[in-house]
Amino acid sequence: MAEFHSKIKTIEWVDNYSKMVDQTLLPERFEYVNIKTGQEMFDAIKTMIVRGAPAIGVAGAHGVVLYAQELEKENLNRDEFVKKLLQKADYIATSRPTAVNLMWAVKKQKEVITNSKSDIKGIVQELKQNGIKLENEDIEINKKIGDYGAQVVPKGATILTHCNAGALATVGYGTALGVVRSAFANDPTIKVFADETRPRQQGARITTLELTMDGIPTTLITDGMCSYFMKKGMINMVVVGADRIAANGDAANKIGTYTVAIAAKYHNVPFYVAAPLSTIDTSISSGEDIVIEERSREEVTHINGKIICAPDVNIINPGFDVTPHELITGIITEKGILRPDYKKSIAEVKA
Amino acid sequence: MAEFHSKIKTIEWVDNYSKMVDQTLLPERFEYVNIKTGQEMFDAIKTMIVRGAPAIGVAGAHGVVLYAQELEKENLNRDEFVKKLLQKADYIATSRPTAVNLMWAVKKQKEVITNSKSDIKGIVQELKQNGIKLENEDIEINKKIGDYGAQVVPKGATILTHCNAGALATVGYGTALGVVRSAFANDPTIKVFADETRPRQQGARITTLELTMDGIPTTLITDGMCSYFMKKGMINMVVVGADRIAANGDAANKIGTYTVAIAAKYHNVPFYVAAPLSTIDTSISSGEDIVIEERSREEVTHINGKIICAPDVNIINPGFDVTPHELITGIITEKGILRPDYKKSIAEVKA
Repeated sequence: MAEFHSKIKTIEWVDNYSKMVDQTLLPERFEYVNIKTGQEMFDAIKTMIVRGAPAIGVAGAHGVVLYAQELEKENLNRDEFVKKLLQKADYIATSRPTAVNLMWAVKKQKEVITNSKSDIKGIVQELKQNGIKLENEDIEINKKIGDYGAQVVPKGATILTHCNAGALATVGYGTALGVVRSAFANDPTIKVFADETRPRQQGARITTLELTMDGIPTTLITDGMCSYFMKKGMINMVVVGADRIAANGDAANKIGTYTVAIAAKYHNVPFYVAAPLSTIDTSISSGEDIVIEERSREEVTHINGKIICAPDVNIINPGFDVTPHELITGIITEKGILRPDYKKSIAEVKA
Repeated sequence: MAEFHSKIKTIEWVDNYSKMVDQTLLPERFEYVNIKTGQEMFDAIKTMIVRGAPAIGVAGAHGVVLYAQELEKENLNRDEFVKKLLQKADYIATSRPTAVNLMWAVKKQKEVITNSKSDIKGIVQELKQNGIKLENEDIEINKKIGDYGAQVVPKGATILTHCNAGALATVGYGTALGVVRSAFANDPTIKVFADETRPRQQGARITTLELTMDGIPTTLITDGMCSYFMKKGMINMVVVGADRIAANGDAANKIGTYTVAIAAKYHNVPFYVAAPLSTIDTSISSGEDIVIEERSREEVTHINGKIICAPDVNIINPGFDVTPHELITGIITEKGILRPDYKKSIAEVKA
């Protein structure tokens, strides 16, 4: 297969800090921000300067390194250092409750800390190296996801995606958009429809930007339009990312995904979830048990700082929804495409 | 049944001009604008200063009166006056191609013109009177729609609506929101969920405003959220308006309605369309034949004048979609609730 070279690197460890694209500025400005303390990283994750499950994971790992560097300067003994650092790691993990990759990456760093035989300086070095390793692995994993996914993209297909599971949601390349990139490398007649993805408009702000930067033909639609284009036969498949997948294949992703999945089912359009295996949390038996983050009122009531509704209206703003496994055609992972019965295929691949 | 008194009168003939709420200023300012020429009325309809099928109908009727007043000053003979006025009426009817009420109301005025036995001054008077009659009829019709619809609203129900088929889409009271108002008058535990309705956000800007002005508890959600709340059992029915209904019950309404209807079907939530009989166009056999207005690129790419996406992204912006009759539980009209088989029930009521 041809290889696709994306222009985008979302998060990268540089010397002694984490460098990332500030995604709150998109699409108007494409700028990098340097995160130099653990608290800055916590805030960057919470305020979505960095977003997307895999990118948040690496951000969390970098956050642990940043705290390690800070604690290194405090003249603690090794035991105190380890104890305090593990607390800071747990704190970092609370910055976004739904993203399992964050817990996963922080756990990987905690394992480095507890397993290390080195002194404080050595632990900090090991955490740095592990952070960079997680970065590189993420890109490798995404390329594998992309290549597996490309095999089920029909020639000349138009692919609908929701939110942003792209290079800017990962270290680079992307999961759902990794599938798009791999498919496009082999078939330049591939096109993308991007859902705007209200309330935070990641589809409009981020997906359209990264795909047009990479020269992939992209049409922006509003979230309610998907059924209209599916009925017209203008959408041939749906590929989305996931923030957490349960043992039965139920997949939590950005709010609105479930609505797209229902529309896809109604029109017999294949609906795929593309995600690394680290997104699958086999400790959760079904989507019923996934905690959905409730986000702020202002995300719905304001756009670019301006109110769009009656000031005293009620708001409920769930950040995610769960697409039940029966609406999912396949889960595209770095180890191949999982198919129903997901309980079985997930248990096998995670064994 | 208790009667509901709404605070809102959207369009009204005053002396020799048409007074209307400028809906492009909502929700920030609730202001009236006086429309004094036929061309101003054409522009007001086209730019959606006035919107909503029934309100557009009355606006079209007022537009014919305004042109009549202008032509009256031109010292034409009666034949020239009638000929030119009929041309202007046809022109007014082209300002919004999808709204059948516009054609219908303009046709009513053309009948006044061609059937009149009066002189020019008399014709202008008759057109004025007919315009005011259409206004009053619209409110009467909406109250009947509301009262019929209220009979199928479960006690304490939460009603989801899309776009704005409210007082501000009509002369007053509303169709879909007329059902809400009539239900609320008898059961103050009724609640509303309002879809934002991108791209133009009529749900956020207009529905939340008119419902909270009238004291009805309203929650604003983004368009992708409906399935999430349906699955949780938090939405008990859907009521939407319609811009045009075909002889088989297929209903054109604001883009996104079809997606809501599919979600409602999937969750067994009753889905009602509320519309006056004038919205039903029996000359159209099915939704396949309804022409969908393509609207401007900027409605999707910009919000409040600010770009929200990559500048060079493709846009397709259909203003409406068609909900097929098999997804519609009932069509609430001023003559009762039509039920499937719609071909039969529509033919009977329109006979």
